[in-house]
Amino acid sequence: MEKSPLAPEKMPDLHPVKGFRLAVAESGIKYQDRPDLMLLVADQPAVIAGVLTTSRTASAPVDWCRKVLEGGTARAVFVNAGNANAFTGQAGVDTVEKTALAVADSIRASDGEVLLASTGVIGEPLDAGLMIRHLPAMQQSMNEAASSHQDLGQDWEQAAEAIRTTDTFAKATSRRLTLNGVEVTITGIAKGSGMIAPDMATMLSFIATDAAIAPAVLQAMTRRIADQSFNAITVDSDTSTSDTVLVLASGMAGNAEISDPASRDAEDFAAALHDLMVELAQLIVRDGEGATKFITITVAGAEDDQAARRMGLAIANSPLVKTAIAGEDANWGRIVMAVGKSGEKADRDQLSIAMGGVVIARDGQRVADYDETPVAEHMKGQEITIAVNAGVGDGAAVVWTCDLTHGYISINADYRS
Amino acid sequence: MEKSPLAPEKMPDLHPVKGFRLAVAESGIKYQDRPDLMLLVADQPAVIAGVLTTSRTASAPVDWCRKVLEGGTARAVFVNAGNANAFTGQAGVDTVEKTALAVADSIRASDGEVLLASTGVIGEPLDAGLMIRHLPAMQQSMNEAASSHQDLGQDWEQAAEAIRTTDTFAKATSRRLTLNGVEVTITGIAKGSGMIAPDMATMLSFIATDAAIAPAVLQAMTRRIADQSFNAITVDSDTSTSDTVLVLASGMAGNAEISDPASRDAEDFAAALHDLMVELAQLIVRDGEGATKFITITVAGAEDDQAARRMGLAIANSPLVKTAIAGEDANWGRIVMAVGKSGEKADRDQLSIAMGGVVIARDGQRVADYDETPVAEHMKGQEITIAVNAGVGDGAAVVWTCDLTHGYISINADYRS
Repeated sequence: MEKSPLAPEKMPDLHPVKGFRLAVAESGIKYQDRPDLMLLVADQPAVIAGVLTTSRTASAPVDWCRKVLEGGTARAVFVNAGNANAFTGQAGVDTVEKTALAVADSIRASDGEVLLASTGVIGEPLDAGLMIRHLPAMQQSMNEAASSHQDLGQDWEQAAEAIRTTDTFAKATSRRLTLNGVEVTITGIAKGSGMIAPDMATMLSFIATDAAIAPAVLQAMTRRIADQSFNAITVDSDTSTSDTVLVLASGMAGNAEISDPASRDAEDFAAALHDLMVELAQLIVRDGEGATKFITITVAGAEDDQAARRMGLAIANSPLVKTAIAGEDANWGRIVMAVGKSGEKADRDQLSIAMGGVVIARDGQRVADYDETPVAEHMKGQEITIAVNAGVGDGAAVVWTCDLTHGYISINADYRS
Repeated sequence: MEKSPLAPEKMPDLHPVKGFRLAVAESGIKYQDRPDLMLLVADQPAVIAGVLTTSRTASAPVDWCRKVLEGGTARAVFVNAGNANAFTGQAGVDTVEKTALAVADSIRASDGEVLLASTGVIGEPLDAGLMIRHLPAMQQSMNEAASSHQDLGQDWEQAAEAIRTTDTFAKATSRRLTLNGVEVTITGIAKGSGMIAPDMATMLSFIATDAAIAPAVLQAMTRRIADQSFNAITVDSDTSTSDTVLVLASGMAGNAEISDPASRDAEDFAAALHDLMVELAQLIVRDGEGATKFITITVAGAEDDQAARRMGLAIANSPLVKTAIAGEDANWGRIVMAVGKSGEKADRDQLSIAMGGVVIARDGQRVADYDETPVAEHMKGQEITIAVNAGVGDGAAVVWTCDLTHGYISINADYRS
C-alpha cells in the first residue's frame, strides 16, 4: 500500500518514557514478514486510564480491558494486529484469558494487570498459542535493550509499526514538559485508517507518561481529551468493535503527584496530553483510506459544544460533502444540507458558511458579491477548511475528516479477500 | 447518464386517476431539451396528506407545503427540477409566493390550494418568471388532453420524466383495487437517486387516487406507510432540504368515503397504498448513484420495530458494508460491526446473521461448519439479502439499500460543476 499523500514527511522525535520497556515480534497471524505483536511493560504497576468502544458488539479484549481498568493499575499492554478477536464467542474469551495469563507469567505480574488489544478481521477465531510463544523472545529483547541502553525512542517507532493494519504509515508522537522544574515525558502511538468515527472507531492508541498522577485525575482528563481528539475525527462514520485508548503513567519522572484537577500542574499536563492526542487523532485522519484532502471543520454559534460537535460530524460524515471535496468542488449547498440533517438547532436565516476563509453565505443566503475564484483555488490544496456559524448560541467545536475518493472504494471493496 | 443496471426492464402500466390532469413543460432552468416542470391539477379540491423533510434547513417550498397541508385540501401540485430553491433567503420565499399565486390564477384557485416542490442545486436563486411563463401552455395542453380523451396514463410517465434530476430512469407505478364493488385507482411518481436517507432525503413523490377518504385517515396512513417505505431506504445516509411526499385524493371513484381507519375498506386501501409506496421507494434505491446491487436487510429479534429499523439502517448506511458488497465479499464481520455501532440493544452472544439465506453466524459466533461457497455465489448476484436476528425481542423491520461503488464517487465528485 502506497503511503498516504497526507502523511507527514517524517516521524517526529520520540522520547523514551521512564519506567516502560517495549518489544515487538512477528506472529504471522495475518501479516507476513513484519512485526505484528507489541508488548509494553511497566517496571512497576502504572496508573491507567482508558476509553473503550461504545459498540454493542465489543470484542473480547475490550471486555477484558474494561475489567482491568477498574483495578486502576497495570503492568503491561499486549497487542496483536491482523485478527480482532471480535464475535468469536467463548473461544474468544478463552483466548483473552490464556493470553493475559501468559503475559502475566512472563513478567511476574497477575493477569488482572495485563491490558490487551486486538485489531483486524472480525469473526475469525484467534489462537492464543500463536501469540504466547513469542513472549520469551520479547522478554529477552526487552532485557537486552535495557542492558545495552538502546535508544528507547526507537522502540516506540517499532511499536507503532507493529500495531498497523491497513495503515499506510506508523503513527507516533511525543511531548516533553516541565512541572515545577521536573521534566515529564508523554509518548504515544496510534493505529487506524478506515472505520474511524467518533465514539471510538477502529483505532487503537497507547500512551505512556512518566508523570506521577492520581488515577481519578488521569481518567477524567483522558475521557475529556478523547472527546476533543479521537472522538472528533471521522473517516467513514463506522465504529469498530475494538477501539481502545489507554494511557499509562509510571510516576518515575519524580514530579509531585498531580492530584488536584484544578492545579497548575494538572492544567499544564492536560494541555500537553491534549496536544499529543489531537496530533495522533489527526494522523489517523491523514491516513484515511483513499484520502487526498485533510479537512478541518469549525462550528460556532451552536446551542452548546456537544451540538456543535454533532453538527461538525454530520458535515464530516456526509458522503456528498466528502465527494464534493474529493472533486475539488466548492459545493457549499451540501454543507447546508448536512447542517440541516444533523438535527441540531440552527437558524436557517442566520447560518453562515465559509470555505478557505472566504465567507460564501451569510444570514441564510449566498453573499451578494460572492466570487468563487479564491474558494476554487483553496479546494485544489490538500488542507481544506470549512467554518460554519449556526447563529443560535455560543457552542463551538472542531472536527477533522478527509475526503471520500475512489481510493476508499478500492481499498474496502476487497480488504478481506 | 447510463440507465442503472438495477432499473426495471420497463415502466409498469400506469392508470389514469379520475379527477386529475397533468402537464409538463421545458423551462431550461438547468436542463436543456427535456421537460423539467410538472403540473398536477385536481378538477375539484382534493383531500391531501404529506410527509416533509425533517431537515433544519428545509427549502422555501417545503415550508410552503407545511402551511398548505394544514388546510387539508388542494387544487394543484407544481414542481420544477434543476433548482431546489433552498437556502435562498427572502428571495426564495418571494419566488414561492409568486409561483403559487400564478398557478392559482391559471386554474382559478386560491394560492393556499397550490402545493409546490423544487429539486436540484441548493443556494442558487430561482427566478419565478422562468416557471410562470409556461403556465398558459401547460393549461392549454391539459385542456387539449381532456377534450381529446388522451390516455392519461401516458401523462403520468411524462410527469415522472419531468421531475428527474440525476435519476437515470423515470419512476412511476399504479395500483387498482375494488372497495365494496367500486374500482379505485392509485398512481404515483417519484424521483431520487443520491442523497437518499430516512427521514425524507432528496426524494419527491406525488401520489394521486380517486378514492374518497377522510383527511385524518389519509394523513395517518401516509405517515405510517412512509416510515415503512420511503423512510426505510437509504443510499448514502444524506437527508435533503427538499424531501416531499404528497398524496392527493379526488374522491371521484364513487366509493363510500373511508372514514374509519379500522374498517375493511381502510385496510384494503392502506395495503394497496403500502404496496405502491414500497415499490416507488425500491425504485429509488434501484437508481442509487452508482448502484450495482440491490440489498434487502431484514432485522428480527430487536427490542421493538423502531430499534429494528435503526439497526437495519445502521447496516444499510455503513460504508464498509456497502463497499464489501460492491466487492462481492461476504464480509459478515462488518455487519457485526454495524449492529454494534447502531447503539440498539443486541445480545452479542445470541446474534445470528445470514446472507443469501445461509446462516453464517449463530449464538454470537461463526457456525462451526460454515461453508462460504454458496454465500460467495449469492454475492455475485444483483439482489443481495442480509438477515440479522438481534436475539433480544420481537421487533422487526425491513430496510432497502444499494452498494457503494466507484460510480457513486464519480457521479458526486463532479455533480455541480
